[in-house]
Amino acid sequence: MIFRQLFDTETSTYSYLLGCERTRSALLIDPVATEVATYIELLAELDLALFYTLETHVHADHITGAALLRDITGSKSVVHKDGGARCADLLVTHDMPMQVGDIDIHVLHTPGHTIGCVSYLIGDRVFTGDALLIDGCGRTDFQQGDAGTLYDSIHRHLFTLPPETLVYPGHDYHQKCVSTIGQEIAGNARLGAARSRQDFIALMNGLNLPYPRLIGQALPANQDCGKPPQSYQGAASL
Amino acid sequence: MIFRQLFDTETSTYSYLLGCERTRSALLIDPVATEVATYIELLAELDLALFYTLETHVHADHITGAALLRDITGSKSVVHKDGGARCADLLVTHDMPMQVGDIDIHVLHTPGHTIGCVSYLIGDRVFTGDALLIDGCGRTDFQQGDAGTLYDSIHRHLFTLPPETLVYPGHDYHQKCVSTIGQEIAGNARLGAARSRQDFIALMNGLNLPYPRLIGQALPANQDCGKPPQSYQGAASL
Repeated sequence: MIFRQLFDTETSTYSYLLGCERTRSALLIDPVATEVATYIELLAELDLALFYTLETHVHADHITGAALLRDITGSKSVVHKDGGARCADLLVTHDMPMQVGDIDIHVLHTPGHTIGCVSYLIGDRVFTGDALLIDGCGRTDFQQGDAGTLYDSIHRHLFTLPPETLVYPGHDYHQKCVSTIGQEIAGNARLGAARSRQDFIALMNGLNLPYPRLIGQALPANQDCGKPPQSYQGAASL
Repeated sequence: MIFRQLFDTETSTYSYLLGCERTRSALLIDPVATEVATYIELLAELDLALFYTLETHVHADHITGAALLRDITGSKSVVHKDGGARCADLLVTHDMPMQVGDIDIHVLHTPGHTIGCVSYLIGDRVFTGDALLIDGCGRTDFQQGDAGTLYDSIHRHLFTLPPETLVYPGHDYHQKCVSTIGQEIAGNARLGAARSRQDFIALMNGLNLPYPRLIGQALPANQDCGKPPQSYQGAASL
């Protein structure tokens, strides 16, 4: 399997390109709108055709490249059915299998950061979006986020995976690229073995984080798979 | 590709089993609840694992086997997102590609019989459900059916396929198993070349068909993928 981890420095977002060597079909997890030109070049260089873009959730901190990639490549946008993405081509639920060439994708519904968060399990790798981060987790104070729900999602569906499963998150702010389920169970500062559900909820509810800077632009755009609303399109071209 | 056309005599429903010879994964289009034992035997005999059940729509005349098959085999239920199936695992839209092993499935949204009707194009075959029947079409007088919409669906998305495309319908009441797009364009009594959109709407709106016998049981059950409501489960076991 072809595999690339890509990083958008502006929003510290990780995106992932996976390609099937036999069929030359590919998928992109959490593509970023401003990086679409890079993806198109990379797909051409690797001789891959983009089949699906997979969102781990409707993002509040950056604009997805799904709509742009759909326009350019004909790829289809995959989102959880509770995510509120009006534009999605394929709406998935927990425990769903999907295929792209010889790549088997398994959908895990891991709400808590948002109600429509999913993780994608592909072989020995799990792409956790903003549910489980390396030594952390996504915030739980908007988009129907809930700390107890996030704790349950991670303990039921991620911490039950084989400990050697590689964890590829949606963001990192300290140059960390990859972890494992075993490492996060042992040492995640917010969710590791020593932390009870009650402690976790108290911690998350006391974070008092500033409201996300881009949420007013990103959320409505991402509900349309990243197609910016008219006013934003105008602003962007200035 | 492994291919079987199956017939339920009680409701004159066609179901279709398609299997990938390489991966031994399979899909069933429009399975019928009372025939589930037959499908299970057939899957075992052909050494196939059921991956998806695909509904062409939420049926009013028979109960789908999707929920029973999910319970027994772990298969997932695929329905159009406007179909109103609360239980679906995967909600699809127009022009979506999906894969099961080496079988490429292309979803065509063909509303008119119901608002959530789709046809599945798989290679040289199109599975039309109750949109296009052999020398006929589905009725348009319930479940947000609309004659003009059905005419447009068929003319835009089915009659534009290559004429040699094989048409496999959801029902036949006269022992006809298969047709082609070319034959239906030329000779379909309701929709063939000689029939205008206006004539078709007048014809459909004047049919005055009796209300479907099983709709009161079938619709609520099928919105739950065929899991009969409690009262009906009781009735069925008498």
